[in-house]
Amino acid sequence: MEIETPKNVTIKGILGMLMASIDDEKKRLISLGMGDPTAFSCFTTTSVAEDAVVDALSSHKFNGYSPTVGLPQTRSAICEYLSIDLPYKLSPDDVYITAGCTQAIEVVISVLASPNANILVPRPGFPIYELCAAFRNVEIRHFDLLPENGWEVDLDAVDALADQNTIAIVVINPGNPCGNVYSYHHLKKIAETAKKHKIVVIADEVYGHLAFGSNPFVPMGVFGSMVPVLTLGSLSKRWIVPGWRLGWLVMTDPNAIFKNAKIIDRLKKYFDICGGPATFIQAAVPQILKETSEAFFTRTLSILKHSSDLCVKKIKDIPCLTCPTKPQGSMAMMVKLNISLLKDIKDDIDFCFKLAKEESVILLPGLTVGLKNWVRITFAAEPSSLEEALERVKSFYYRHSYEQNGSVDP
Amino acid sequence: MEIETPKNVTIKGILGMLMASIDDEKKRLISLGMGDPTAFSCFTTTSVAEDAVVDALSSHKFNGYSPTVGLPQTRSAICEYLSIDLPYKLSPDDVYITAGCTQAIEVVISVLASPNANILVPRPGFPIYELCAAFRNVEIRHFDLLPENGWEVDLDAVDALADQNTIAIVVINPGNPCGNVYSYHHLKKIAETAKKHKIVVIADEVYGHLAFGSNPFVPMGVFGSMVPVLTLGSLSKRWIVPGWRLGWLVMTDPNAIFKNAKIIDRLKKYFDICGGPATFIQAAVPQILKETSEAFFTRTLSILKHSSDLCVKKIKDIPCLTCPTKPQGSMAMMVKLNISLLKDIKDDIDFCFKLAKEESVILLPGLTVGLKNWVRITFAAEPSSLEEALERVKSFYYRHSYEQNGSVDP
Repeated sequence: MEIETPKNVTIKGILGMLMASIDDEKKRLISLGMGDPTAFSCFTTTSVAEDAVVDALSSHKFNGYSPTVGLPQTRSAICEYLSIDLPYKLSPDDVYITAGCTQAIEVVISVLASPNANILVPRPGFPIYELCAAFRNVEIRHFDLLPENGWEVDLDAVDALADQNTIAIVVINPGNPCGNVYSYHHLKKIAETAKKHKIVVIADEVYGHLAFGSNPFVPMGVFGSMVPVLTLGSLSKRWIVPGWRLGWLVMTDPNAIFKNAKIIDRLKKYFDICGGPATFIQAAVPQILKETSEAFFTRTLSILKHSSDLCVKKIKDIPCLTCPTKPQGSMAMMVKLNISLLKDIKDDIDFCFKLAKEESVILLPGLTVGLKNWVRITFAAEPSSLEEALERVKSFYYRHSYEQNGSVDP
Repeated sequence: MEIETPKNVTIKGILGMLMASIDDEKKRLISLGMGDPTAFSCFTTTSVAEDAVVDALSSHKFNGYSPTVGLPQTRSAICEYLSIDLPYKLSPDDVYITAGCTQAIEVVISVLASPNANILVPRPGFPIYELCAAFRNVEIRHFDLLPENGWEVDLDAVDALADQNTIAIVVINPGNPCGNVYSYHHLKKIAETAKKHKIVVIADEVYGHLAFGSNPFVPMGVFGSMVPVLTLGSLSKRWIVPGWRLGWLVMTDPNAIFKNAKIIDRLKKYFDICGGPATFIQAAVPQILKETSEAFFTRTLSILKHSSDLCVKKIKDIPCLTCPTKPQGSMAMMVKLNISLLKDIKDDIDFCFKLAKEESVILLPGLTVGLKNWVRITFAAEPSSLEEALERVKSFYYRHSYEQNGSVDP
């Protein structure tokens, strides 16, 4: 099978192809491919959030259009929510409401795009950035994340890549697909590097606050006084409602280094041509942010910690897989695939397609996020499903390895 | 005051400026500027629709991602809904779910865009087309709608404008801002013209079925066998829920003249970078389409007919305004402004700003939809509000006219 390069395929695209190659009648499908935990019953949102949406809808007050930049009360609520963790106070005008973080990415790239522009994105990374950049004719330049250093940014690579046409650097923290949570110190170094090159930081914090390891989550906006930061976020992950499509794009740029009348005008005009999130979902946000209990967040973090630990432990029993660094956040991790131990598997794509077909387990080929012969495992899953899935990967390994000393199915 | 040209200003932008010039303490604000009837209590959606959304949300099954092209059951339901009025049957694969009709426009233009491309759009028209085209570097070419012919398309102008770089012609029916509903015969002539020039028709049917005059609503897709039609629609207007952001983009192209593997691939990729509508709202669509009563639709049409008639009648008493043709559908009409009767009003922009300031009534300057010295009146309003607003316009007229024989405020 010919697989396109990551530039031309999205995560959803390849997962669809993997799904199509599953033989339903063999085994129960377990997908650890997508960052959508709602498929697993241990990940459900809080009733506070659902009630807030029903309340907003039932009020009959929010069936009409909202301003294209978002409802004022929603902008204010998100402004307050984010300001808590910052050394300065944002203004509601800094907050733009988007249809999920995906639309925030699309808006940022479209608004920053200019002839000959290039953008620095991490490898491994999130393919939507490349797809958006391709649609807007923005050149993509990859810097590596270093697995042996907790997936930190290779700052020397950034120095080598940035030039006068560089518009921004993308930092995803907590990290998808790597599960990294960067230290204050490392984020500061990224900010200093961006400042040196006079580029803005696009801080993708869709997994904001989902940190369960030793590093606490530090929003990039903390360094907003040093370098302009465009912060992207969403209710999707922390509230486990990715289908609600409620995200934001925030100018965390207190010194107005980047934000000016022209860019704000361009942003506003771009929002005029976008379809944003439903007005009544926007209207629910203040109540959601105010009333969600700490206990709900703690519970999610505890499940994620437990399931990521389980994953790391089970992977140790699968000789062809290595986990270079323990995940500290988000919902996914990258695992290295040692193809030389497998007798009839060509690469990560081949591995994932054969695994799907034979074991009804879906993992994401690393190539789709930029790393050949790695795989991404989403650990936001029911522990029992995770355990079974990784048992099946183990059987699969022994069936395809040169060793042939493990459990073998017919 | 310097006002930008329509290319650079949106309806929402200019309405915002008009709102800002209102003196709250003088009179109750009546806005007949925006096509959002939810501001008026006689326009409320059916409980069927709200219940369907609450049901979908309460099921806890639709908090996750939907496929980027939309939920399968939603695509199927819209496919059936539209197929009823067509001489052929659509496939659910022809239907793409969008965040309102606005996003459908954005997707269509982005996907059709190519170097040197141009697109034919009506004048007066809907500014989002121009804004999208500008962002995608697509050249806009205007053909006139003819007020004296029920705002029919000037087909000779289309013939003169189309060339080998023309990608599409936009037809808005029922019409915004004109209130036209085209006959079968006229739509057929448009289709023939598009076929002759080998261009696709973008059929903006966001006001689909909102026809209350002598011409019934005929979907452009009826001529899909002759010329490829991209049909855009939404729940927004017929169900009076513009804030729900649930729209669609449909390939009404049964002979696959236009749709092919390449364009479908490009469409799907574009949807991968878009934030679509909330999954639970999508999930409510089958129930909404199935259970909404005819009585609900009939009631809306009857209110719209009554209020548009009222508008036409009241306008006859205002010498500087002429209604060239009675609206037959949608929620808005265009009214000609005779500036020569007014002693201190420069043009439609000046008229609308002074009217807002002095009378707290908002009408949309025609220039924002491409016609200088016209105004757009949204008649989807409470009859009592409409009546009062037009009484105030009358007072305004007499205060600013050479006649000075009417009622005059201090």
